[in-house]
Amino acid sequence: MQRVLVVDVGGTKLATGVVDHAGQLISEHRTPTPPDGDAEAVWSALVGGIERALDGAGRPAVEAIGVGCGGPMQWPEGRVTPLTMTGFRDFPLRDRLQERYGAEVRLHNDAICVAIAEHWQGAGQEHANMLGMVVSTGVGGGLILGGALHDGATGNGGHIGHVVVEPDGPQCRCGGRGCLEAVARGPAVAAWAVEHGWNDGEPTAAAVTASARTGNKIAVAALTRAGRAVGLALASTVALLDLELVCIGGGLAQAGELLFGPLAEAYAEHAGVHYARAPRAIPAALGQQAGLIGAAALVLRGDRYWHA
Amino acid sequence: MQRVLVVDVGGTKLATGVVDHAGQLISEHRTPTPPDGDAEAVWSALVGGIERALDGAGRPAVEAIGVGCGGPMQWPEGRVTPLTMTGFRDFPLRDRLQERYGAEVRLHNDAICVAIAEHWQGAGQEHANMLGMVVSTGVGGGLILGGALHDGATGNGGHIGHVVVEPDGPQCRCGGRGCLEAVARGPAVAAWAVEHGWNDGEPTAAAVTASARTGNKIAVAALTRAGRAVGLALASTVALLDLELVCIGGGLAQAGELLFGPLAEAYAEHAGVHYARAPRAIPAALGQQAGLIGAAALVLRGDRYWHA
Repeated sequence: MQRVLVVDVGGTKLATGVVDHAGQLISEHRTPTPPDGDAEAVWSALVGGIERALDGAGRPAVEAIGVGCGGPMQWPEGRVTPLTMTGFRDFPLRDRLQERYGAEVRLHNDAICVAIAEHWQGAGQEHANMLGMVVSTGVGGGLILGGALHDGATGNGGHIGHVVVEPDGPQCRCGGRGCLEAVARGPAVAAWAVEHGWNDGEPTAAAVTASARTGNKIAVAALTRAGRAVGLALASTVALLDLELVCIGGGLAQAGELLFGPLAEAYAEHAGVHYARAPRAIPAALGQQAGLIGAAALVLRGDRYWHA
Repeated sequence: MQRVLVVDVGGTKLATGVVDHAGQLISEHRTPTPPDGDAEAVWSALVGGIERALDGAGRPAVEAIGVGCGGPMQWPEGRVTPLTMTGFRDFPLRDRLQERYGAEVRLHNDAICVAIAEHWQGAGQEHANMLGMVVSTGVGGGLILGGALHDGATGNGGHIGHVVVEPDGPQCRCGGRGCLEAVARGPAVAAWAVEHGWNDGEPTAAAVTASARTGNKIAVAALTRAGRAVGLALASTVALLDLELVCIGGGLAQAGELLFGPLAEAYAEHAGVHYARAPRAIPAALGQQAGLIGAAALVLRGDRYWHA
């Protein structure tokens, strides 16, 4: 039986799996990304994870490989330079996988894979025009428009993290200013809280969220600021693209109402044009498997999601 | 010989024409929109204009009809309620034209028609991912993505006028706040100038532009503010959609460097992400015929521009 091998390469973990033709994960493995590892160290860890996933699926023949990876990247060539990893710098991930496993490789941005997964199997099914976004260490996304993935000119379509939400706001690591990512990514939320006197735990978004749940006012304010920034960016995005739905995943989305409440308030203030008025942001449905499922869709539903 | 009838319905003028299969206008007529006319008065003026255009083309058989009209509208049903006209309120423009001329009617937003025209015959040829926008009494646009028109869920895709550029900015007539349209549309530019003490002519964007050309500092500042707002909205839009090109038309675009200079400055400040860095906003090429040419494309290039 031939199977699809799927890979999700991130700064924290390397997820690997094997998927059947219905898009169900039949094996899955996770291993930490070697911190500060060089390219070959990361590659070795990745191959180790792939072998474990293949073992778990009974060593099927690999028919094709779907990959999600942190950006930026050369697309569709699959040379990757993830912001969140120091090891891969212009690393030919597509070609290395193709050489080793002798199968076609389709590789896309990891946030795009999450968006694809939500459209294919998650909260966005039946919606022809939707944004899937991830609010985590970075803020990214992918767009399904007219029922198919929008790649953009260089494979970066859907990157909502660099929509401007505060014209005079903080510098963004992209070189711009006031980007959504500069305000709402996890480390920015934690840094803002610390700057405003918060000292209720480790300076991480997860700790700020936990603190906010206990009623800590600074922590609540930090999440409110991030939620409002997301809501404002979504008002712009829904008005521009006339979307039916936005699915939001990633670690910060776990804050629930602490994030989604202020998000909805800012959205209501700014989304005035008639077709955008009704709120339409919901939590993503697929959780941490979304990246692998989206990678599978690049192969199994190429008609909708792969136009390279 | 069968021909395509084309119509462009705006608050100021009703443009009509006849187009051959190559997309060339072989006759064209313009008549003012009856001010404060009721629906039937506008309809009569429109039919008069159509008859003149048909006369000018030698009374060909009407094969199909392409229409651009100010929004909002029910799309693709073609019931129109243009913001800039009091006469048409939920007016069944598509059905009325179809009944009278016995031909299929394809109707879309007028700014979308301008974007289509620029992609088909204008400044955006050869670009698969582009925005065509109009900065005039309103601010609108249309998106070509992956080589085809992006309609959106309700036919409003590309409406860049409601991207937020000043989170604490002026109320927009859409009900939102800080929208690009609220800052950069012609009447807003003129009103801002007057509020800041400008008195060098009639309170219109055209007069402010003329005054700015003579060096009037308030007029220059008014156009600078509008240009920066457009640049900021474009930084968000290009980052979100990974576009190759933006074509800008409409009356205010005639201000040239007075608008495009500040636009480029704000774009450079905010478009930091690598694929968006190079500037890519240029003036539209087709001028006042763009609306009619785009309406023709709805019929003649339906494969790319008509998915209703």
